[in-house]
Amino acid sequence: MSLSPNYRPGQAQAELDNFGVDWVVHYQFDDIDPSKATEELSSLLAHLHEAHLETQVRHGHGSSLLIFIKVPRMHLGRLVHQSRVKDWLYGIIHELPAGDDDTIADAETPAEALRSVYHAVTWKKALGGAHITPGHGKWKRIASAFPLHDQAANAELLRKWSRTVLLTAEDLDAIRALFGEKVAFYFAFTQSYSSFLVVPAVWGAVTWWYMGPYSVTFALGNCLWALVFVEYWKIRETDLALHWQVKGVGALKVTRNKYVWDKEVRDPITGETVQVFSPWKQFLRQLLLIPFASVASLALGGLIVVTFAMEVFISEVYAGSLKGYLEFLPTILFSLCLPSITGLLTSIATRLTKYENYRTQDQYDLAQTAKQFVMHFITAFLPTILTAFVYVPFGAAIVPYLDITRRGGDKQDFHVDPTRLQQEVIYLSMTGQVLDFGTEVVLPYVKRVIWQRWRDYQEKKEAVKCRRRVSSATNQVLIDDPDESAFLARVRNEAEADEYNVHEDTLEMCVQFGYLMLFGASWPLVALGFLLNNWLELRGDFFKLSLECQRPPPIRADSIGPSLQGLEVLSWLGTLSTATIVYLYRGGMAEVRVSSLLLTVLAAEWAYLGMRFAVSTGLRTILSTTLRRESAKRYAMRKEYLQASAGGSPPRGKLRVRFRDRVSVYTSATDPPSPQRDDVLHEDTLDGERRFWSGVAVEDGMRIIKALARRKGGEKQM
Amino acid sequence: MSLSPNYRPGQAQAELDNFGVDWVVHYQFDDIDPSKATEELSSLLAHLHEAHLETQVRHGHGSSLLIFIKVPRMHLGRLVHQSRVKDWLYGIIHELPAGDDDTIADAETPAEALRSVYHAVTWKKALGGAHITPGHGKWKRIASAFPLHDQAANAELLRKWSRTVLLTAEDLDAIRALFGEKVAFYFAFTQSYSSFLVVPAVWGAVTWWYMGPYSVTFALGNCLWALVFVEYWKIRETDLALHWQVKGVGALKVTRNKYVWDKEVRDPITGETVQVFSPWKQFLRQLLLIPFASVASLALGGLIVVTFAMEVFISEVYAGSLKGYLEFLPTILFSLCLPSITGLLTSIATRLTKYENYRTQDQYDLAQTAKQFVMHFITAFLPTILTAFVYVPFGAAIVPYLDITRRGGDKQDFHVDPTRLQQEVIYLSMTGQVLDFGTEVVLPYVKRVIWQRWRDYQEKKEAVKCRRRVSSATNQVLIDDPDESAFLARVRNEAEADEYNVHEDTLEMCVQFGYLMLFGASWPLVALGFLLNNWLELRGDFFKLSLECQRPPPIRADSIGPSLQGLEVLSWLGTLSTATIVYLYRGGMAEVRVSSLLLTVLAAEWAYLGMRFAVSTGLRTILSTTLRRESAKRYAMRKEYLQASAGGSPPRGKLRVRFRDRVSVYTSATDPPSPQRDDVLHEDTLDGERRFWSGVAVEDGMRIIKALARRKGGEKQM
Repeated sequence: MSLSPNYRPGQAQAELDNFGVDWVVHYQFDDIDPSKATEELSSLLAHLHEAHLETQVRHGHGSSLLIFIKVPRMHLGRLVHQSRVKDWLYGIIHELPAGDDDTIADAETPAEALRSVYHAVTWKKALGGAHITPGHGKWKRIASAFPLHDQAANAELLRKWSRTVLLTAEDLDAIRALFGEKVAFYFAFTQSYSSFLVVPAVWGAVTWWYMGPYSVTFALGNCLWALVFVEYWKIRETDLALHWQVKGVGALKVTRNKYVWDKEVRDPITGETVQVFSPWKQFLRQLLLIPFASVASLALGGLIVVTFAMEVFISEVYAGSLKGYLEFLPTILFSLCLPSITGLLTSIATRLTKYENYRTQDQYDLAQTAKQFVMHFITAFLPTILTAFVYVPFGAAIVPYLDITRRGGDKQDFHVDPTRLQQEVIYLSMTGQVLDFGTEVVLPYVKRVIWQRWRDYQEKKEAVKCRRRVSSATNQVLIDDPDESAFLARVRNEAEADEYNVHEDTLEMCVQFGYLMLFGASWPLVALGFLLNNWLELRGDFFKLSLECQRPPPIRADSIGPSLQGLEVLSWLGTLSTATIVYLYRGGMAEVRVSSLLLTVLAAEWAYLGMRFAVSTGLRTILSTTLRRESAKRYAMRKEYLQASAGGSPPRGKLRVRFRDRVSVYTSATDPPSPQRDDVLHEDTLDGERRFWSGVAVEDGMRIIKALARRKGGEKQM
Repeated sequence: MSLSPNYRPGQAQAELDNFGVDWVVHYQFDDIDPSKATEELSSLLAHLHEAHLETQVRHGHGSSLLIFIKVPRMHLGRLVHQSRVKDWLYGIIHELPAGDDDTIADAETPAEALRSVYHAVTWKKALGGAHITPGHGKWKRIASAFPLHDQAANAELLRKWSRTVLLTAEDLDAIRALFGEKVAFYFAFTQSYSSFLVVPAVWGAVTWWYMGPYSVTFALGNCLWALVFVEYWKIRETDLALHWQVKGVGALKVTRNKYVWDKEVRDPITGETVQVFSPWKQFLRQLLLIPFASVASLALGGLIVVTFAMEVFISEVYAGSLKGYLEFLPTILFSLCLPSITGLLTSIATRLTKYENYRTQDQYDLAQTAKQFVMHFITAFLPTILTAFVYVPFGAAIVPYLDITRRGGDKQDFHVDPTRLQQEVIYLSMTGQVLDFGTEVVLPYVKRVIWQRWRDYQEKKEAVKCRRRVSSATNQVLIDDPDESAFLARVRNEAEADEYNVHEDTLEMCVQFGYLMLFGASWPLVALGFLLNNWLELRGDFFKLSLECQRPPPIRADSIGPSLQGLEVLSWLGTLSTATIVYLYRGGMAEVRVSSLLLTVLAAEWAYLGMRFAVSTGLRTILSTTLRRESAKRYAMRKEYLQASAGGSPPRGKLRVRFRDRVSVYTSATDPPSPQRDDVLHEDTLDGERRFWSGVAVEDGMRIIKALARRKGGEKQM
């Protein structure tokens, strides 16, 4: 728990408690009049009330409001039940949940409850939601809308993982219970991948010790390992999707707001009105990915090639003045150009994805991620590919042409050091991982802590100044209730935190896998480094997710998305690359013949295809027992149902778990709750919560807007 | 209807009628005493009666009995319902059939009813069957057990198809209704494949006309076509499996009699006792396929290479006496050796498959088929592969070494004619198809007709002879009732007909596809020939199935089995082979460089892999609408169920179709039956049926055994 920046021993339970808040909307009104803000606020609150949601308002940092949303427990129970019935209708689950339209169901996990809250806040009115869409249209002044972190559960998980090596199945279930399946799939993947990494780590260390780099033995083992891992993950993914009951969940996602359809037709089978966009048209539009990938390759590839050539020129050929400074020039230029080129490409990619016109946000995200994959792979791998397959083998022939300074003069006999590839792999893989971790986890944390300190200091100073100018009544409104102050401080921080992007983290793991596959043969110890890195990475990512980012809405997914295809492509490319590297570098570039090289590549490819078939068949045979478990479960449930309905008694209900059960996320995944637990909670916590929800949101909100406006006015008068 | 050998205009409806017989058991007792036969017969009948089956006995050809089995309609209805409940339990269908343990359901199709009959006859007693296993153990004198053909429906389908080009979706449903899903999948596959063949047929004709053989244009189109077809079929297969409600049907197949298990464990989830055989062990045993394939390749390959070398030697090098006769020698030797080598390999394959120890007959069949694929592919493709990639390119270098007659002498300058490949492809593909059709359909038909005529003649002669020696009471027993004689004649023929092997027919189509893929580039008109052949093939196969073979038990399957993998491998190999052939033969073997050849192959392979990804993604996008239909249907059914149960009324039952509805198999797939149809049947037919079932089976059977024995005795006395 020591990792939580907000937690100090001795603080009351109240600090960890969320005051029964289900969702928070962060409304910013710097750029408009208080009267306009008041109008928008009351419209927002009216929308929320219409959707049967309770609200409360407090002020945020600067000119912003925090609107707290609570879904009444009875209403939430109905929503959860309706959501399950919908799952059943779409075939995601196979048992119709017992009950009728008015049944109230307890959510099995916090994530399930939060998903219903999410739907209640964001879905269209026709679907029973309040249609609050942060940053879009009418609600463009809503900066974010998010659920609050479960501090206690997060801290418990982090504390547990800091002492263990492997995440257990319960840990994954706990992540799912807290953050939903999409996030849980990322952690499950990283966990599986890191466990598998033990094999090439050990294998790499052994072969490195006895055979050095470029060993055929390591190469074969490494490629086989990659095959087994990818095929294993395919099965594991299906297994998890069945276990978490999300198989085929894409089908019931709601239509995106920006989806454009050709026509609305009445489905002859279901009788529902379906919005149809010609799949042919969509496929033709998807084909634009090919020119996009070409343009991206050209733009990024061109930049990389130019940088590379400049680097080589300066370090190997150039002998003029300022060489010491000029050596940094290519890297600086590269670093300056890369963001703008990537930015341009990303905006093209986004336009393309929009143009491809996907019905659901899921499909949209996947298509966008696929495009980012292409870009990331180019920037991540192209420099090393150039070194391995162009610079080192052909450097001696190419570099003299770069030597424009001695045009026509005597070309010196130039030699490329074949160990350059190895040096680059060591540098990029090791320092790269450390730098990544730093920029991803440590740097944002440090920045955030400093920024918070500074702002707290500023605000305190201002508050003291303002107190002199504005009435004490105004101040009264803007000063937090002591019971709430810790809670509100935390919510204000969460409101300004980043959104968690699970695709980026997955992508990072894929790039690592790709690096090992493509260039591992040149330095077999690379897997060992990755293994150590990933132990930290997994915890760092959870730290980031739980303490530096907003809690993501618990979105469901049934896979890690297009990353799986990325892995397959990388393991295939890796086989070819490994074969080529071993062939070229093993003998130190001596006696290289084109036909033998091509034969090696061809043989490697055939071996890859053959082994992939054998491995996937074999794994399916061996792991069939695991996969069969789910159908056994369904069989058992149906059998039970049949027997129960024959005997006249209704089928046994699911174990009930209460949403606000604070004790342990583990229990929510496994045990039934004990009814006396709620009594353990401090009476004053419940009192605080009751007081928190007692005010009238609209009136509170208007008072705060006025007070904030007055304070702002006060500042200006200074 | 003119195709039916038993049908003559003017015959009564009775001939087409099956007298209400559901299943026929053919019992042969040539090798045992009448008393032993009587004993076995009464045991058989007792077993059948225990399983609630009605029986009747007539004599067959020679010393054999025909035991007719009828499942009482009420019992059949219960079995059908129970089978559906079992489907639901195992997740094959998603709606629990309405009703309780005693519900009587009408089968939707004849095949569904026959499947329940099949189970009632063959399943173990513990599962409620009579455990009659033809040819095994106690029942080794049972030559066959089969359902009777539906003559009218078969004739109607054949008549319809002789006038149309394409099979419609209803035709496939009709085949499924008559013969079950396994057979229907073969016809659906051949239908899809033949329709797709139009593209390479037209493309081939056009490119042949304008560019001749070895054209890059045709090669590209052909490879792309194969990719699209294979990916399309994958989707179509899933689609059909969902439409026919057989997806995942493998899971509920019963355990084979010869399955050996390591241990019996109680499944912790379902509570059922499960027989477990370690999947690891099974996988290790499956790996024996690799040495098997190697041995098969060596044995068959060796034979083919030796034949080939001999052929080349005799035709190209040998100039001695008897050359005209000796030229046939290799082919004769090959034809003599092939059956014994294939036989030996098949017996090894069978042993291997047995050793691999599959739980269900389905898995066993698939594993055995996979092995036969390997063997078939070698014999079908290796000769042409040798011609294309060894003899023509390297002939000039190799053949002189064969010239043992002129050892040490002056080697003549030998040239291989590059058109030899094309000639071989034309010969093998065209004459091969015609010969196949002849040996598969025409020859057996002619043989059967002649054999039947001869036997009828013999039996008539004997009957006349015997009548003099044995009592007229005995003869009375052995002479058919005039009402039944036509029916019994037909059943006797069906009893002696072959079993239909759907795997062989599928394999034949795969070999054809492979030929087009591997060698099509050398003679682009080959697809046109295959297209014409397949029009006839499809009808010929149905002719064979319905008139020359026993009606197969309506087994369910959810795919065409391992053939799909065969198709994938062939389309991949085809791409490589096409690229090589075009590269080698386009310029008439001039300027061949190994590195360019390898580069061509590598480029072809990468293009193949890239295109396959694009095509499968594209097809899935475009055809997603078709696949979504099934989930829409499920959605609609569940919605209806929900509304009905909310309103209190039970969900609407399925349309009822009567099993013995004789009018049209189409109606069984589509329309609800009209209740007056049974009245249309001639009263005398029903009378005949009633008389047929009136006797007591055991007594009739013993009388016949005695009479047959006496007749045999009479013959011997002559």
